[in-house]
Amino acid sequence: MAIIRALAVDIDGTLSDQNRVLCPAALKALRKLKVPLVLSTGNTHCFTRTVCVLLGTPRIFIAENGGVLSHSDDDMEILADLNVCEDAFQKLAAEFPLQRYNSARYRFTDIALQRNFDVLAAARRVQEMGLPVEIIDTTYAVHIKDKRVDKGTGLVRIAERMKIDLSEFAAIGDSNSDLPMYRLAGFRASVGNAIPELKQISDYVAKAEYGNGFAEIINYMNENGMI
Amino acid sequence: MAIIRALAVDIDGTLSDQNRVLCPAALKALRKLKVPLVLSTGNTHCFTRTVCVLLGTPRIFIAENGGVLSHSDDDMEILADLNVCEDAFQKLAAEFPLQRYNSARYRFTDIALQRNFDVLAAARRVQEMGLPVEIIDTTYAVHIKDKRVDKGTGLVRIAERMKIDLSEFAAIGDSNSDLPMYRLAGFRASVGNAIPELKQISDYVAKAEYGNGFAEIINYMNENGMI
Repeated sequence: MAIIRALAVDIDGTLSDQNRVLCPAALKALRKLKVPLVLSTGNTHCFTRTVCVLLGTPRIFIAENGGVLSHSDDDMEILADLNVCEDAFQKLAAEFPLQRYNSARYRFTDIALQRNFDVLAAARRVQEMGLPVEIIDTTYAVHIKDKRVDKGTGLVRIAERMKIDLSEFAAIGDSNSDLPMYRLAGFRASVGNAIPELKQISDYVAKAEYGNGFAEIINYMNENGMI
Repeated sequence: MAIIRALAVDIDGTLSDQNRVLCPAALKALRKLKVPLVLSTGNTHCFTRTVCVLLGTPRIFIAENGGVLSHSDDDMEILADLNVCEDAFQKLAAEFPLQRYNSARYRFTDIALQRNFDVLAAARRVQEMGLPVEIIDTTYAVHIKDKRVDKGTGLVRIAERMKIDLSEFAAIGDSNSDLPMYRLAGFRASVGNAIPELKQISDYVAKAEYGNGFAEIINYMNENGMI
């Protein structure tokens, strides 16, 4: 079994339930952790930092799907360009009924939209128009993001700064946006509610869903001497 | 026993432990709640909204010690003036080694400082200079805030909007900044780590500390048919 020195973990649907509420089992599992946990999410810097405070995890995280990183409370890094997203938003808004989330004022690099439109059709239009953005559906929100970043590029940079090899990271998630970090990590584990594409390439798939699945994964890694 | 229709609850030290990490017992207690819980805190709007998401509580809350209210995800109300705090900050910074927290970019009305200076002496200087601000120590941070607002003025406005009488609110907290809402609520309960001033005017004082104390309070209110 791989020896794991850090975890990269999605929030919504992985630590939370389907309504984004934190699972008590996930909170308890975190308390047993002896390796650092890097949150990796499409949420804003402010949202993610708050989750770190409440969970007691290091202030090292990937926010806005890789557009914003935190290396410490004093060290935020912005790696993507909001302007290309704004431009794409304007073009798509002419064809689709796009509605932004109120978190807009806290976003540095990407645009989060409500899931009230045809996401696949919008993604096709982005390709047809050759826009430098990507449309991703986390099942909680749809994001327009700079295509140069994702949770994978974020993880590469975080791993470099932490001086931990990518092969020593475990990636834990549930949705499309987690794929790029799954491709890089040394160990991949999915909660029971994860999409089939993630489960297929996982080293471990939890029977339990949501935060209970996360707790099951931590338990599995502990029992197998990985962490 | 009073019938309680809503709770106004502090976050740091009341739902969290001494390191600001959420207590599993508090999270579990929240799941049993049948009445709305209004978070009431010195934290920012963004921080507090995130706590609402993770706890699954309504998006109705008091942030920045009453300077900012949320009535819903689309309805934020700003009730205090950052300028008077900035002015006081400049004057005090000439005499005390004030250090702002990084949350500054997310604050609309008050200034949060590290607890590395003589807070009582600074509060005296504010009085001597006749500045329209108040210095409060939550034991997690020191705040400079517009003295026209506090958790009490916030609660009055929230209660009005919720159409719930103040006497039907329970206030639950641990520190100085909770006093103004204790004076208004129909029922007051303190966690075991609360300051003596709060315990003295409490209808119930939990034996347990921090989030475990909160769980004990919810249990007490349930058993006594108050909620």
